[in-house]
Parts: sequence; C-alpha cells; structure tokens
Amino acid sequence: MIPSEIIKQKRNGNEISHAQIKDFINGYLSEEIPEYQMSALLMAIFFNGMTESEISALVDVMLNSGERMDFTHHSNYVADKHSTGGVGDKVSIILGPLLAAAGIAIPMLSGRSLGHTGGTLDKLETIPGFKVNINLDDFRKQVDSIGIAMIGQTEDICPADRRMYALRDVTGTIESIPLISGSIMSKKIAEGISGLVLDIKTGNGAFMKNIDDAHILGDTLTKIGNAFNINTDVVYTSMNQPLGKTAGLWCEVRESIDGLKGNGPDDTMQVTFELGAKLILQAGLSKTQSEAIALQNELISNGKAYEKFIEMVEYQGGNPQDIENYNQLHQPKLSKSLKSEESGYIQSMDTYKIGLATIELGCGRKKTTDMVDPTAGIQFYKKIGDKVNRDDTLLKFFNSNNSKLVPAEVLLKESIQIGGKKVEHKLFLD
Amino acid sequence: MIPSEIIKQKRNGNEISHAQIKDFINGYLSEEIPEYQMSALLMAIFFNGMTESEISALVDVMLNSGERMDFTHHSNYVADKHSTGGVGDKVSIILGPLLAAAGIAIPMLSGRSLGHTGGTLDKLETIPGFKVNINLDDFRKQVDSIGIAMIGQTEDICPADRRMYALRDVTGTIESIPLISGSIMSKKIAEGISGLVLDIKTGNGAFMKNIDDAHILGDTLTKIGNAFNINTDVVYTSMNQPLGKTAGLWCEVRESIDGLKGNGPDDTMQVTFELGAKLILQAGLSKTQSEAIALQNELISNGKAYEKFIEMVEYQGGNPQDIENYNQLHQPKLSKSLKSEESGYIQSMDTYKIGLATIELGCGRKKTTDMVDPTAGIQFYKKIGDKVNRDDTLLKFFNSNNSKLVPAEVLLKESIQIGGKKVEHKLFLD
Repeated sequence: MIPSEIIKQKRNGNEISHAQIKDFINGYLSEEIPEYQMSALLMAIFFNGMTESEISALVDVMLNSGERMDFTHHSNYVADKHSTGGVGDKVSIILGPLLAAAGIAIPMLSGRSLGHTGGTLDKLETIPGFKVNINLDDFRKQVDSIGIAMIGQTEDICPADRRMYALRDVTGTIESIPLISGSIMSKKIAEGISGLVLDIKTGNGAFMKNIDDAHILGDTLTKIGNAFNINTDVVYTSMNQPLGKTAGLWCEVRESIDGLKGNGPDDTMQVTFELGAKLILQAGLSKTQSEAIALQNELISNGKAYEKFIEMVEYQGGNPQDIENYNQLHQPKLSKSLKSEESGYIQSMDTYKIGLATIELGCGRKKTTDMVDPTAGIQFYKKIGDKVNRDDTLLKFFNSNNSKLVPAEVLLKESIQIGGKKVEHKLFLD
Repeated sequence: MIPSEIIKQKRNGNEISHAQIKDFINGYLSEEIPEYQMSALLMAIFFNGMTESEISALVDVMLNSGERMDFTHHSNYVADKHSTGGVGDKVSIILGPLLAAAGIAIPMLSGRSLGHTGGTLDKLETIPGFKVNINLDDFRKQVDSIGIAMIGQTEDICPADRRMYALRDVTGTIESIPLISGSIMSKKIAEGISGLVLDIKTGNGAFMKNIDDAHILGDTLTKIGNAFNINTDVVYTSMNQPLGKTAGLWCEVRESIDGLKGNGPDDTMQVTFELGAKLILQAGLSKTQSEAIALQNELISNGKAYEKFIEMVEYQGGNPQDIENYNQLHQPKLSKSLKSEESGYIQSMDTYKIGLATIELGCGRKKTTDMVDPTAGIQFYKKIGDKVNRDDTLLKFFNSNNSKLVPAEVLLKESIQIGGKKVEHKLFLD
C-alpha cells in the first residue's frame, strides 16, 4: 500500500476499497501513516464524499479498532438514543431513565460540549460526585444491574474514531456527512445495542443547517444501522431555537429533573416522548404510538422514571439528597437580564450565537484544558412566536465569573430578532 | 490566527488574505503549525484553487522565506529559462551556454528527475567532476565572471517551497496549478532575474495533459512574473513524444554537445531557438525573431556557444578533455533493441511510459536514496509520422545493470503504436 496513491484515488473521485481503508486507518493507528497523510485523506473525503460501501468499510474498521460490547445475555431490549447536537438539548437525561423505567436497557456513551453545542457528560458531571469515567466492565455490570448507565467514551471504544476526530477538529474536516456518520455509528454499534433512535437536529443552531442535508445524514445513518443489524429510527427536530427554557450546565439538569417529575417544558417533553416512542415500539412494549406516549406519561406520573434517575445517580457516585434539593445547588453568583428594546413578536433566534454565548459563560471549553462553570447558563423567558412588550425580560444569563458575563451579553444581544408578525416555530420537521 | 479557521475558509471557497497566508506558512516553518494542518490546507487548495491575489501572496511568502539574489550590479540582461518537465528535454544544457555566449547572464537553478521526467542536474552530474552543489556566493561570482552557472537549489533559496513540496509529494497535492505556479515562480524570482521564458510541456509525457490546462498554467505563471517585474514569455511545446533522439543521462549530455556543435536534432534545436529568441528579444540584442534565430545559429557555427559550455564545465570542476572525447565516456555495458513487429507509420508514443522506462533503466530515482546510472538511456530511431518496416529498429535502450533492463523493456514495448496512416506531430502548440 502506498498511502499517497490512496489519497490521490479518493482525491480523483474514485472509490477506495475496504482493504485500502483498513490498511490506511490501521497504518495510522500504528503510526506508520503520519497525521499529515490522514488529514489530506480526510480533506479529500470532505470534498468527494464516500460511497455506501466506503462508509460501511469506514464504520467496520473504526468499530474493530477497539472493544465491542455485547449485551446478547440481557433479557431486555437494549437500545440507545443519539442527538447530533444542539443548544439546550437535555433530552438524554430525561429519556435515558424514562426508557430504563419502561424496561429497555440503556448503555449510553455520551459526549462533551462540542463547538457551540452542549454535552450531556458536562451536564451530568455537575451532579456532585457523579462519575462518568467508568471502565467497560463496570459499565456492563451497571446496565445489567439497574438497566442504565450514562458514561463517557472510554479508551477501549473506537480508538480510531477518537484519534481521527481529534485530527478532524483541527483540520477543518468535521463537517463531512460520511465522516460524521462513521464517527457516530461506530461508537453506537460498539455499545452492543439492538435499537437506536437518532435525533437529527436541524437549523441555525445545529450542524445540519437545512432539512436536505439532515435527510442525507439521516439516510446515511439509517443505512449503516441496518447494515449492522440495528433497528434504526430517525426523528428530525428543529434547532432554530434552543430546546426547553434553559441552556447551560446545572440549569439543564434541573430542567431535566423537572421533566422527570412531570413539570418539563412542552417542546422538550414532546421530543423526549417522540424519540422514546420509537424505541418502545421497536422493543414491542407498546403496539401504537399513542400507547407508547401514554406509557411514558404514566412512568413519569407514577414516579418510576424519576426513581430510575435517582438510582442511576446513586450508582454512579452521586447523592440522592442533592437531587431532592436540586433548587439549592449551584446558585450562580452573577446574573443579568436581557430586556426587549421594542414590542412585537419574537421572529427568530440565532441559536448558534446563543450556543457560543453558553461557551463564553463557562458551559463549554475553548481549549480542552478549560474548566467549566456548573452554575453557568441561560434561562429563556420568550421564544419564537411569543409576544413581547418593551422592557420585558427576554432571557437571563448567569454564571460565577464576571469576566465571562460581558462577552456572552454581546452575543445574546445580537441573537434575538423581534418584529411585527406573529410567526410559528415548527418543532418536528419532515 | 486560528489555523483550522484558515483551513475552513479556504475549504469553503473563500479567499484567504496575504496576512493569513503569511502567518500560516511562517507558522509552518517555525513548527507552530503542524504538518497535518498544512496538508489539509494544501488539499483544500487542490480542490478550490487560489485567486490571483492569493497566488501572489503565496509566491511572496515563499520567496521571502529564504535568500533572494540580486544581479542589479550586472551590466548584462539577467534571465533564465524554465521547462515544466518532460522526457528527453535537454534544452537547458544547450540554451544556457548559447544565451550566455549571446551576452545574457544566466543564473540557473535546475532540478532533479521528478516522477517520470528527467532532471537537468542529474544529466549535468554525469560530466566527471562537475559540481552542482555550489553556495550562493560562489554562484553569484561565477555568473559575474563567466555569465552562466547551472546549479541545484540550495538550502537558502525558498525553504518554504522545499518543505511544502516534500509534503505535497506524499499527500497527493502536487497537481494543483496555483501550487505548481507558486513553487516554480518563487524559485525563479529568487534568482534575481529580469527575464524569463517558460516552456510549458503539454501532452501525454507532461504534467499538463491538454492545452487548456497548459494555458491556465502559462497565464498564471505570466501574471506572477509580471507582478514581480520579470519579463515573462511562454512557449507551449508538445510532449506527446520525447524531445530529440535520446532520453536518459549521459546520452542527453552527448546530444546537447552535438547541438552546441551544430549537429543537434531538429526538434530540440527548434525549441531551443524559439525559447532563446524570446530572451534575446527581451534583452534587446536582436530586433526581430529571425534576427534572434540567425544570431543563435551564428553563435553555434562560430563555436562560441560550445566554448561557453566548456568554460562552464571547467569552472564547475569538469575536465574539458572529457567533453572533447565525449563519445568515449560512459559506455553502457548492456544494450538492447526494440524492433517493429509490423509495417506502417508511428501513430503515437506513450511518453509517460517511456519516461517511466528511463527511471527503470536507472536515469532517475524511485526513492530519494537511489543511485542513478550515468550510462542509462534510450536512443530513438523512429518517431511519430516516421515510416517503419517490420524488424526495423524502433529504439535502443541501454544501461549497465541487467536487472533494470527487463522492466524497462516491458514498458517500452507498450509505448509505441504503429498504424497505416501517416500522422503529423506538431511540435509547437498555441
């Protein structure tokens, strides 16, 4: 194998074989192929895309670069949910315990804040004592024992993806549908799941800006899932405004607890139930969509979903007492309101800028070594279509570091457009 | 400057500024920017090209990464010739001394065999004792003293180009017109010349396969030359068959000596005179093209061009006696003929394969550490349009290493097509 010839083949728009993809990635992992050849290949893939069989080979090689879990011994249906990332998206924190309470085993590997989007792991880590770095043996045991575990990616899972992802991040090769698909699906397949529901976030705060790209991604992910015998459903939801009434760290956990207790915001609960219904139907626990929604409502109103969450928190090192007193925890030292300068209706929200503002506040990292601020976040009082009067509070933003409040304010001021027309926001896209 | 943002900017088809190009390349040279980010940028440039002002910035930064020569003190017109590379192209070896004899100062930095093409340096080095690794001070002195020097690229000239070229070679990013242009022109401008003539080789044995690409390259090179106050002329010549009757190492020097003595092959001398006329006209040494051609013919028939060659050889460490006895030197130990299996006319020659055959014979390197064989080469007895009878010798190939003769034969057998039609070969293209 001559690495530069494989790069040229892809560069010229010709298909590369399974064997070539395997040799290239394995050569990269063993450091025979240097980073600069991998980055050139990734950029060529960015421009020329990949065929179905190339993507399938990519997933196969990344998957087999590490350990692959096996839950075939588990009597429950084993499944997971994945979101392509957005702002205020705390659905996993509600949906995981909810589905576990329904009798679906959930071995969930989550991610950290990425770019302008929030990360489930960073949110969960604001629960005092909550551990997300758990080895695969303990992860397996926890899923066997309580039906759910939510942890970070370990060294053993898809090391090829981890190295390639880090390289893509610094070489402008993140935004490639085949590479995104390979990265997502290799990790999900490695979880040993039988079912998967994907929430493809679409809009100005998502990686996919329009529904056409979202469909291409959704179709690609579904094809991969099917090829690896995973029942795969896709839901397309809007990221043209943040999901729920909060975006940040602890404030999102708080909002999730509200959701688990039956007081969640409408949009968040609708997305949660829609995704949950897909897996409940896959598992055969309900016969129809409306039964599946009713089941979820019941598990919330009878407290089982919340109990499952408490059980998980305790298993992973947290203190149930902290959850019970969740309104006292992580009080921000600083808080500021953004008031409306005019009257009218909210026309649109620049969700990307809002996401960047959460990073400025301390909810994410600009460098991997940055510390996050658990108290940081935003509370939204008005969203698209809402009527506002002059001087109404549009949102509050808060954290515990004054120097980080100002840059966020600049961004937030630019993020909300008000006009005379009452507009509608569509949560579910087709 | 965030390197990945510059990569994305180029990847998205947006122009990058002079300051960004400067920061990126200088960051690369100082090793703040790693190879993998440079290779990603190079691949993005491969796909999206560069605007005129980007190319101009590229040349400027590469040029100023090293030393830049200055011949403003020189009373003669200072100029150079560059060919984009081909098979059997020994024009520099004839034209350099010829123009120096005409009173044009020639500070020529030449290259080595690259891919399937021959390199002037490798050919000149077959002259016993001839040194091509000369420092810039001695180079300057030699040009001041005898009006010509032909040497290799030194460490001081365009280090950015040297590093980027080596990276491009292994990342599939050679075949980019802006990058090719930047690489050629930064080195030529660093020579401190006032005039330049470019021979853009076009055809199956050249990097430019068709005249449209050749024109794009020619126009790009001309614009850069003009922007840097260098009179730049372009000539487009065919590389659909080797130039002259030989391709190889010493055999090409021998054919060049024949040319300097007035016995050169027609095509080679036509190209030499055409290119020479451009620089003679630029220098104002002749008023018309026909005068410029007549001047060159005169300098060959009165022996001045040959004398200048001898003077250069002696100055650079060679022995004039070896040149006088040039037919005795470097006799190949092995030689084989390729005979025609049919009668007809030569229809076409696969010049790329012929070039690869010269590399197999030992005229070039597959790895940078390979040794070349000065005796290796090919003599052509028939070229496009020539009538051949069955069993006529089409060509002879020779070297001093039997194991290298066989692979060359396989390639050469496939390289000549014979048919019933008498076809014409056009040497000059428009």
